[in-house]
Amino acid sequence: MKLFRTLIPLREAQSMVLRHVRRVGVEEVSFDLAAGRVLAEDIISEMDSPPFNRAAMDGYAVKAEDTFGAAPDKPLVLHRREPGSESEELNEGEYIPVQTGMPMPKGSNAVLMLEYGRERDSKLEIFKPVTPGKNVSFKGEDVRRGDIILNKGRVLRAADIGMLASIGKSRVKVYKRGIIGILSTGDELYDPKGSSKGAIADVNSYVLAALMGMIAKPSRMGIVRDNYDALKAAIESCITDCDADAILVSGGSSVGNRDFIGDVVEDLGEMIFHGVAIRPGEPTGFGIINEKPIFCLPGYPVSMIAAFEMLVRPLIEAMHGLKGAMIRQVFAVVSKKIPSAVGRTDFVRVRLYHDEYDGKYYVEPIRVSGSGILSSVTRSDGFVIIEDNKEGIEEGEQIGVNLW
Amino acid sequence: MKLFRTLIPLREAQSMVLRHVRRVGVEEVSFDLAAGRVLAEDIISEMDSPPFNRAAMDGYAVKAEDTFGAAPDKPLVLHRREPGSESEELNEGEYIPVQTGMPMPKGSNAVLMLEYGRERDSKLEIFKPVTPGKNVSFKGEDVRRGDIILNKGRVLRAADIGMLASIGKSRVKVYKRGIIGILSTGDELYDPKGSSKGAIADVNSYVLAALMGMIAKPSRMGIVRDNYDALKAAIESCITDCDADAILVSGGSSVGNRDFIGDVVEDLGEMIFHGVAIRPGEPTGFGIINEKPIFCLPGYPVSMIAAFEMLVRPLIEAMHGLKGAMIRQVFAVVSKKIPSAVGRTDFVRVRLYHDEYDGKYYVEPIRVSGSGILSSVTRSDGFVIIEDNKEGIEEGEQIGVNLW
Repeated sequence: MKLFRTLIPLREAQSMVLRHVRRVGVEEVSFDLAAGRVLAEDIISEMDSPPFNRAAMDGYAVKAEDTFGAAPDKPLVLHRREPGSESEELNEGEYIPVQTGMPMPKGSNAVLMLEYGRERDSKLEIFKPVTPGKNVSFKGEDVRRGDIILNKGRVLRAADIGMLASIGKSRVKVYKRGIIGILSTGDELYDPKGSSKGAIADVNSYVLAALMGMIAKPSRMGIVRDNYDALKAAIESCITDCDADAILVSGGSSVGNRDFIGDVVEDLGEMIFHGVAIRPGEPTGFGIINEKPIFCLPGYPVSMIAAFEMLVRPLIEAMHGLKGAMIRQVFAVVSKKIPSAVGRTDFVRVRLYHDEYDGKYYVEPIRVSGSGILSSVTRSDGFVIIEDNKEGIEEGEQIGVNLW
Repeated sequence: MKLFRTLIPLREAQSMVLRHVRRVGVEEVSFDLAAGRVLAEDIISEMDSPPFNRAAMDGYAVKAEDTFGAAPDKPLVLHRREPGSESEELNEGEYIPVQTGMPMPKGSNAVLMLEYGRERDSKLEIFKPVTPGKNVSFKGEDVRRGDIILNKGRVLRAADIGMLASIGKSRVKVYKRGIIGILSTGDELYDPKGSSKGAIADVNSYVLAALMGMIAKPSRMGIVRDNYDALKAAIESCITDCDADAILVSGGSSVGNRDFIGDVVEDLGEMIFHGVAIRPGEPTGFGIINEKPIFCLPGYPVSMIAAFEMLVRPLIEAMHGLKGAMIRQVFAVVSKKIPSAVGRTDFVRVRLYHDEYDGKYYVEPIRVSGSGILSSVTRSDGFVIIEDNKEGIEEGEQIGVNLW
């Protein structure tokens, strides 16, 4: 096994990882199944939306010019257009009742709101003038034919699904959900879904699967015992049997004698780095087997989550052509100094709170006694990354918080 | 049909809605399928986690007292414990190599990190003292037996799934996903998934389904034509055939002649209110049929989204026992006055941006020309609700932004 004695800076590790990205393929899905997926094409509208001028209010379609001069004490009177003749143009002095969303009758150019008119016996008294275009939603006002309405690389949201529906785009290209093979290593592990009991439950494979959300497709490949042959066979099976686009192995990534993962990666492919100047998550390694990225993640759940957020998530986002981030960032004022050491990047679990009194948004670190403390994550609202050139963040500084 | 001439304030409408909440049932699911679901029980740990004292670093398990006085220029020497005798207590002057996560050998009370020792021929030179408890993760440090580790009403996240795994909680009670029946009304509508073409695509039922996320189960019941009998039959079918826990009907909710929905609700049950002082979303109505809540939502997609966020989402959250909100709120400084009228609650689509220069987080309204403009939602990062007693929000004020 190659020895990686020096820890490399996070930025360097990230750029090594991103150098080995292979974009997943594209598939076409029905628009209504695309929420949460990454768009793989620019969506260009082939039509105007709305497709015609339509009423934006319930009321009376009129020629605006016919209403000029109307006032509460000096109402004007219009005549209802004869039924059956809606296809013809509205004549001067005529009106037609309309509902929100209905096409504007030919010859009309404004909608007088219900409350500004009084209709009786096909006559309409109007008490207020309207200007041309008033309460009309114009053809192409929302979207014009030829407009790019949603960009490639966007994670689709509810309103985007509506936008696709509104322009009649019933099928849409999205990135395939890459298959992420997940292995947990350790003689002490048992599967909490199974009946066999061991010393420690396999937490990591379940957390990794849940962290991926809708973007990728986790494939949990079980627990592997701590020996070279078992680990090698499991990784080979990830690549051949489950056709994983990337592999995540947790546990067994530090430098002790039980740790065969580095040897296996070296024998099957190449280890690119092993050891990153991050805390927690330091023993994280990264390699390539058959052009497929493989991460060796720490066994401690919190260290693994830290390594996932700082190194694996960027890979998964890049594999899926994601522009922007899966995780939302918000900015808040540090309410209590967050200490950190120069020379390593810190992953700090934090809580956010809004001070009703001064209207500000504050962030404070969760007190932890060890990196194994998963409750430090469940009790937190998100995390903060403190770069390796900073000696902590002082009270009063603003910082970006990544929300879970 | 009852006439509802006056618009009621949003707060009043919300409390009327919440008065009719019926909590959905509870089901038990495997812990790994519970991400995104609402927890229906307090999770109390039946065990300590970690279940025993364990090494928190790779290194050497020692009696801390044996290391006192060690220094780079004055190393102390310990002897490796004979293999095969690990079950017995560590004697004075002995050490055992340990890996992160391994149980601490009996008699040891600290882990000396790899780099502070040099092992040769079963002898360990140590260059630094450790204090008792150093690099040890103590039994129950993360979770103590009897602790409530996750509270009822929480939406479960990735790390929570790990927490459940770590305490061996393989099945967990969550609220059932309530069935939300969705109908779109309108003669002009066509289903963008079907082949038939009409004037306007049914956008609303797809947006409503996507807005629900994982919490509830949308059941799209199709498009209903604008007549009393069709609408009545469709609503009855929602209640009997699809056993909906709540019903959302969009379109046909304003006061014009085509609007039969109010009549149907009155004939099958009771209309509680119709018309809320919100913009957009004013013609929203709410009623009860067979103890089931039914919303009459506006036909314009943006108005419908506004009504959903202000009135329907609170109902869905309460039905599912959700504590906290499905939507994340962040605070930002208003960069450009957001105008609003006293007497109505405004739903304003906004964009957020972070100013690198002053480190502040700003919010600005999306310019819109009409409530039908769905692109005002897709272009936005979230929305702001301006209460009815406010005449807009001045530049420089802080405000809570609800992220999509």
